[in-house]
Amino acid sequence: MGRKLRIGMIGAGRIAQLHIENLVYRIPESEVIGIADINFERAKELARKYEIEDAYEDYREILKNPNVDAVFVCSTTDTHSPVSIDAARAQKHIFCEKPIDRELDRIITVLDEVKKAGVKYQVAFNRRFDSSYMHVRDVVREGKIGDVHIVKITARDPKLAPISYLESSGGLFLDMSTHDFDMVRYLSGSEIVEVTSIGACLVDKAVEEIGDIDTAITTMRLANGALAVIDNSRQAVYGYDQRVEVFGSKGCVCADNATGDTTSTYTVEAVTKNKPLWDFLERFNDAYIEEARCFIDSCLNETEIKANAFDGLQSIKVALAAAKSWRLGGVPVKVEE
Amino acid sequence: MGRKLRIGMIGAGRIAQLHIENLVYRIPESEVIGIADINFERAKELARKYEIEDAYEDYREILKNPNVDAVFVCSTTDTHSPVSIDAARAQKHIFCEKPIDRELDRIITVLDEVKKAGVKYQVAFNRRFDSSYMHVRDVVREGKIGDVHIVKITARDPKLAPISYLESSGGLFLDMSTHDFDMVRYLSGSEIVEVTSIGACLVDKAVEEIGDIDTAITTMRLANGALAVIDNSRQAVYGYDQRVEVFGSKGCVCADNATGDTTSTYTVEAVTKNKPLWDFLERFNDAYIEEARCFIDSCLNETEIKANAFDGLQSIKVALAAAKSWRLGGVPVKVEE
Amino acid sequence: MGRKLRIGMIGAGRIAQLHIENLVYRIPESEVIGIADINFERAKELARKYEIEDAYEDYREILKNPNVDAVFVCSTTDTHSPVSIDAARAQKHIFCEKPIDRELDRIITVLDEVKKAGVKYQVAFNRRFDSSYMHVRDVVREGKIGDVHIVKITARDPKLAPISYLESSGGLFLDMSTHDFDMVRYLSGSEIVEVTSIGACLVDKAVEEIGDIDTAITTMRLANGALAVIDNSRQAVYGYDQRVEVFGSKGCVCADNATGDTTSTYTVEAVTKNKPLWDFLERFNDAYIEEARCFIDSCLNETEIKANAFDGLQSIKVALAAAKSWRLGGVPVKVEE
Amino acid sequence: MGRKLRIGMIGAGRIAQLHIENLVYRIPESEVIGIADINFERAKELARKYEIEDAYEDYREILKNPNVDAVFVCSTTDTHSPVSIDAARAQKHIFCEKPIDRELDRIITVLDEVKKAGVKYQVAFNRRFDSSYMHVRDVVREGKIGDVHIVKITARDPKLAPISYLESSGGLFLDMSTHDFDMVRYLSGSEIVEVTSIGACLVDKAVEEIGDIDTAITTMRLANGALAVIDNSRQAVYGYDQRVEVFGSKGCVCADNATGDTTSTYTVEAVTKNKPLWDFLERFNDAYIEEARCFIDSCLNETEIKANAFDGLQSIKVALAAAKSWRLGGVPVKVEE
Repeated sequence: MGRKLRIGMIGAGRIAQLHIENLVYRIPESEVIGIADINFERAKELARKYEIEDAYEDYREILKNPNVDAVFVCSTTDTHSPVSIDAARAQKHIFCEKPIDRELDRIITVLDEVKKAGVKYQVAFNRRFDSSYMHVRDVVREGKIGDVHIVKITARDPKLAPISYLESSGGLFLDMSTHDFDMVRYLSGSEIVEVTSIGACLVDKAVEEIGDIDTAITTMRLANGALAVIDNSRQAVYGYDQRVEVFGSKGCVCADNATGDTTSTYTVEAVTKNKPLWDFLERFNDAYIEEARCFIDSCLNETEIKANAFDGLQSIKVALAAAKSWRLGGVPVKVEE
Repeated sequence: MGRKLRIGMIGAGRIAQLHIENLVYRIPESEVIGIADINFERAKELARKYEIEDAYEDYREILKNPNVDAVFVCSTTDTHSPVSIDAARAQKHIFCEKPIDRELDRIITVLDEVKKAGVKYQVAFNRRFDSSYMHVRDVVREGKIGDVHIVKITARDPKLAPISYLESSGGLFLDMSTHDFDMVRYLSGSEIVEVTSIGACLVDKAVEEIGDIDTAITTMRLANGALAVIDNSRQAVYGYDQRVEVFGSKGCVCADNATGDTTSTYTVEAVTKNKPLWDFLERFNDAYIEEARCFIDSCLNETEIKANAFDGLQSIKVALAAAKSWRLGGVPVKVEE
Repeated sequence: MGRKLRIGMIGAGRIAQLHIENLVYRIPESEVIGIADINFERAKELARKYEIEDAYEDYREILKNPNVDAVFVCSTTDTHSPVSIDAARAQKHIFCEKPIDRELDRIITVLDEVKKAGVKYQVAFNRRFDSSYMHVRDVVREGKIGDVHIVKITARDPKLAPISYLESSGGLFLDMSTHDFDMVRYLSGSEIVEVTSIGACLVDKAVEEIGDIDTAITTMRLANGALAVIDNSRQAVYGYDQRVEVFGSKGCVCADNATGDTTSTYTVEAVTKNKPLWDFLERFNDAYIEEARCFIDSCLNETEIKANAFDGLQSIKVALAAAKSWRLGGVPVKVEE
Repeated sequence: MGRKLRIGMIGAGRIAQLHIENLVYRIPESEVIGIADINFERAKELARKYEIEDAYEDYREILKNPNVDAVFVCSTTDTHSPVSIDAARAQKHIFCEKPIDRELDRIITVLDEVKKAGVKYQVAFNRRFDSSYMHVRDVVREGKIGDVHIVKITARDPKLAPISYLESSGGLFLDMSTHDFDMVRYLSGSEIVEVTSIGACLVDKAVEEIGDIDTAITTMRLANGALAVIDNSRQAVYGYDQRVEVFGSKGCVCADNATGDTTSTYTVEAVTKNKPLWDFLERFNDAYIEEARCFIDSCLNETEIKANAFDGLQSIKVALAAAKSWRLGGVPVKVEE
């Protein structure tokens, strides 16, 4: 084996730990050599558990370490863009949890700094690394279904998140639909130019009280002329319901839900099967590994980044336009406005 | 067996023949005793083939026959409402092909006359009589999926109809989506209050030249607060793609496409299965029988009509609103405007 | 349309009525002009209902009628071979319900007489006319799965028949497995040369008391070297479970159960789907029409009979060998012994 | 976290490495502290890679280490029983790859020594730890399908192993069907009392030359009266085909193949889906982790061993009976003979 990519982990929360697990145990081409978190105890604890050399309270210590090749930005959402800028200036490759920021101008600053520094930048659109979605995208790219006419996505969480989380989430479109807007772009290979959203508060009235919605349908016009639609719900009691479909002039390709087993039971009452996998960690377990693996590979071998800062920018633009459309009562809103 | 319902068939085209076949061979409670068509030769030919007593050129001859209990209005679309009015005044029960009319005031006149006459009136929303869709509706009604949050319908024809047909069809929303608007009402048990449509001409540019579209996505708000979405295409090369889904607070129920056989073939390349059934006659074969059977039953036994004139009116209202929304560039349009 | 085939129906029981329905209403190329049954009232009743010209008590009256081109032998099992012989001598084409007989020498006499008379003879192996099974056979014939290695059939009835019926049924292998033995031959295109059967009485001990079994597994060696296996049960409480699979050097093709609708319901407990169709009349409804249509076509247009007297003979030979293997405790028995 | 189980790995081949990966990275309750292989270089290489303290040429060095709590016996098949005996005498818990031995008396000696030593002994029947198979077993145990009537297993490898491997494999029944015999026992909860096997050489004539077969069907009678059947092939070109089904008085439960993604592609030609997973490492990846985790748990927390030495003995007994039945031309053979 050749050289390993030496990684500094910024953040020590749940998603940071998930990435550490994958980097340490499943990606031999990487090595986590430092971790930083404002909760210093937590950083030290993970350092001990995963035999990471250095733990810090201040992420800038990691950026100063000349042995660090790349950082994973897994700190709180509001810190993503400033940390990204600092890391770019320190000449580190960057893997950044989504969203980069909720303000377009701050994302654009990140893009500028990354470009100036010439470092790699990957946004954590984990679904781009799922084998089913990759297959759908490949089928589209290879022209097997012809010109794209309709992209259709269903994305429903299994359980309403706590209101405290939702309050600081940026709202349904920024928090949840951004993944789907990115998927529309990824699967169709085209940009979203106009968006129309309707929404409602049907799962829990407490969501309405914080000025948000829990159910939405968004339609889109794409640059290539195709139409797209996403339906979102914060709560599908039967599991994490994630399906995509691309329909075109020569056919249709879709990805159905994944289930935990392949059994069927036949009785006098009915035929029963297992439910969709329960949450994103279960459903996209392999995708998390693959996204980290691809990032490491891009840094080491100069292969293309598969979810870059521009992708991060675009999905936020669409989300802001969708939120605006919803607030205006469902009128069409141009993304580039 | 008790008394048979004596039927007069008005029209002798393809759909008239389909109904005659079902009435004569599959519904012992009915008897076709007369047929009328402005193409008299065609009327006589079917009369001979199916051993129908009387053939006429003028449908009013059928209405004069005191032995006729009910009529099937299967003449051209523009004649549906005047023939319905004449039939109601002649005290005949009426089974009318869809749409009743494309003008709201003319439909309302039909409703008035039917009410005044006290006759049964059924609109040919055949999908309401399909076993899969009935099961979806039953699951919703029984509360198994809780409150309805999202209704989702995919409806794609296998092959673009000839431009000559499309020119006089009333456009995509009136010709095609009316079935789906009715299905949203039927499955949700709620009225559509607002509609937003975007459309495009992606299958064939000739459709654009006649001022129509071949691809559309329509979103709706329902009276009970739920959201709904329909995606339509005039051409799905792999077959007649008809799927519905109702998502709610306690679960989700959906109906997938029907296929012609149940086989799978496994080879070194792939697993292949049969395609969806090709067209509406194949797919809704049993539903056509069931809708006629139910109508006969309503007439003979005073059971409830399952797709009445009001249903016919509502779907046209929504279609007109959808067409307006599309022409206005995708703004929301209230149905009751 | 050309000349119609004029048919005499021999028998007036359930299966006779099913064939009459199909001949009268679904196969315009045929005409039922006479019916005979030892229960003369029943014959007259069906004649009245389906407007059949003549009803008789004695089937020989039908054979004497020079206008009758073909007969359907739907009388009791013990009469199949003598009626067949009389019909052949009267120069009528013959469609015969299965089995032709339970005695090999009597079947051979039928074959001889049919050959001598030069008439068409079709045995009612309805499954050969099912679209799924035909597709499996076509895939095998076209070489898509290469050389056949394993044929696997599951055949389970939904409900144990009354003991009174079972007592005169000839036993599980003759009554039930004969369909499956024919299917092994049909799908593989090869003869069965050796058979081994084990059985048990697991559904109802009353079956044991009449010297029969209700559950069995039979393995076979075919002339082309392939192996085959059938599992049978008299009672699958979830429905009529009929599946076939052919595995070969280049792949595998299978036919799964058919269901009454295409719905799925997702709840917090499970995903539920509809059960397999309940019985053979529902499951093989279309196959019954197709087998009659093919017979009529063979008689009118000299096309090949798709389930001939030799097929009827072979399946009985295998069934007798299977029964012998079971009685001997599961030793292999050669079919040509 | 409490005490870790300290493990000595005996063997350094492919399966040993798989277990080390799982123990080191996925099972925090275990620690691999030594490894031995007659290929000392290989042992040292793995020790280096996975940071294992000690590497030896002679496995007895591991047994002498008082810090070792348990051993994984992953050396060549012929050494499984002597190493097991030595390990039991050294008071180590034992996880042993299958088969324990191909000679019944040697397996019995292992059972005796294990009993005498009072150590834990687990046989590597990995399928018992697959989530789908566990669910099937649970459904059966909970009585949801009533009394078991038929157990049906399809087990086909994706690709014929090299003839050199097959020559020393012990033959199809010992090498391949043992997994399935264990599965019949596991799923039914009953012992196999009689077995009948037919076989053929259809994949490659070279298999015949070494006195073996590549295709087989085995039927069984179980102690509880149920029947069972297994069909085996050494080569299913479309992938690793592993399906099980248990049919009973109240229903049926089955586990279908697992696939790599959940996509479907619809075109004018056909609907295509992904193939079954290609090999046992892919298909039973999670089961390998789970079997090791359960073994560790049994050693640390005195929970029940889920695949014990007796299970290992029984499947070999059945395999020897099956081989005998096949050699005798397919006569039934009692397992306890």
